[in-house]
Amino acid sequence: MSETKTPLEFYFDFSSPYGYLASERIDELAAKYGRKVKWRPVLLGVIFKATGTAPLTEVPLKGEYSKLDFARSARFMGVPYRQPSRFPLPTQVAARAYYWLHERDCAQARAFAHAVYRALFVDDRDISDAAMVLDLAAGVGVERAALAEAIESPAIKERLKAEVAAALEKGVFGSPFILCDGEPFMGADRLPQLEARLAGKEF
Amino acid sequence: MSETKTPLEFYFDFSSPYGYLASERIDELAAKYGRKVKWRPVLLGVIFKATGTAPLTEVPLKGEYSKLDFARSARFMGVPYRQPSRFPLPTQVAARAYYWLHERDCAQARAFAHAVYRALFVDDRDISDAAMVLDLAAGVGVERAALAEAIESPAIKERLKAEVAAALEKGVFGSPFILCDGEPFMGADRLPQLEARLAGKEF
Repeated sequence: MSETKTPLEFYFDFSSPYGYLASERIDELAAKYGRKVKWRPVLLGVIFKATGTAPLTEVPLKGEYSKLDFARSARFMGVPYRQPSRFPLPTQVAARAYYWLHERDCAQARAFAHAVYRALFVDDRDISDAAMVLDLAAGVGVERAALAEAIESPAIKERLKAEVAAALEKGVFGSPFILCDGEPFMGADRLPQLEARLAGKEF
Repeated sequence: MSETKTPLEFYFDFSSPYGYLASERIDELAAKYGRKVKWRPVLLGVIFKATGTAPLTEVPLKGEYSKLDFARSARFMGVPYRQPSRFPLPTQVAARAYYWLHERDCAQARAFAHAVYRALFVDDRDISDAAMVLDLAAGVGVERAALAEAIESPAIKERLKAEVAAALEKGVFGSPFILCDGEPFMGADRLPQLEARLAGKEF
């Protein structure tokens, strides 16, 4: 007789360090308050073009600090982290693969997303490479040949474009960006505020 | 026989909401771990020019979110907050007044800084106005005529320029920006990490 609660929406780019940090905590956090999470990979390159901003690491002064803060925030949250040698990098292939998998098997898509993030931010793999993406998918039980064909299909390319456009419509301007009953929380450092909201604290 | 610990350096702009939030917590936090804090107002306009960035509120999508996040973060931290009707605004006069006061009486300068921040973010006063700055200074016991002359002196203008240049040299790219034994912490949302560091936690 439990009431049905709206799932959180979790927007992220596969090359976003703070997105990765949130990805390691968001499901557990939501589950604690009886919520599920919809994972929605987006492309920060497209979003930054729309908002006229640049990747953190390319901004003078901020760039150097960011790298320090990625690693420190990971330690603070207890999440394994290594600064990738290639960074930032294109994530279209991984995002397309995610949406294709998600149509077929949500749990497998979730396992794939974790594998992609950990490959980049723990094992320093080049997740912009289609062969690497296929390997990671195969590692979670996906049929490699079918996915190889799917990630080149016009349908899945259109799907990803539509997802990014829809995210922009909802005000998504960075990664991670979480919507909780319509309220936006931007950044892994907003998880404490998100938790307070889910816990029903007054603030 | 207590050992002398290096003071924290707290860089902020008087028109920075997150700087204001940090200003309401930083001294108490530092004191808990036997530290003092050097307050250093800077000019974000100059810093943003150097780093090629724009005020948060002027970035599409991010702008609207920021206003929501200023107020929510204030509630989360238990700090009174009202979004100023004029924002952002120039803060040279307040910063010059601060440095002039600081040469004479540190405690008075600190009281003045709190008064300026609260005037903007609680009482919605126009702190870019020299008369308002003088009123706020008078409110903490400063002789108004002497300060009125001082804030127009070439010496204090040069002092502020030198302070902003020195901050840029140290890597300050936003507000609040806190240095703890040389380690940078950017943002009111990094106070928990700063506290963990001060407490000597391993992370």
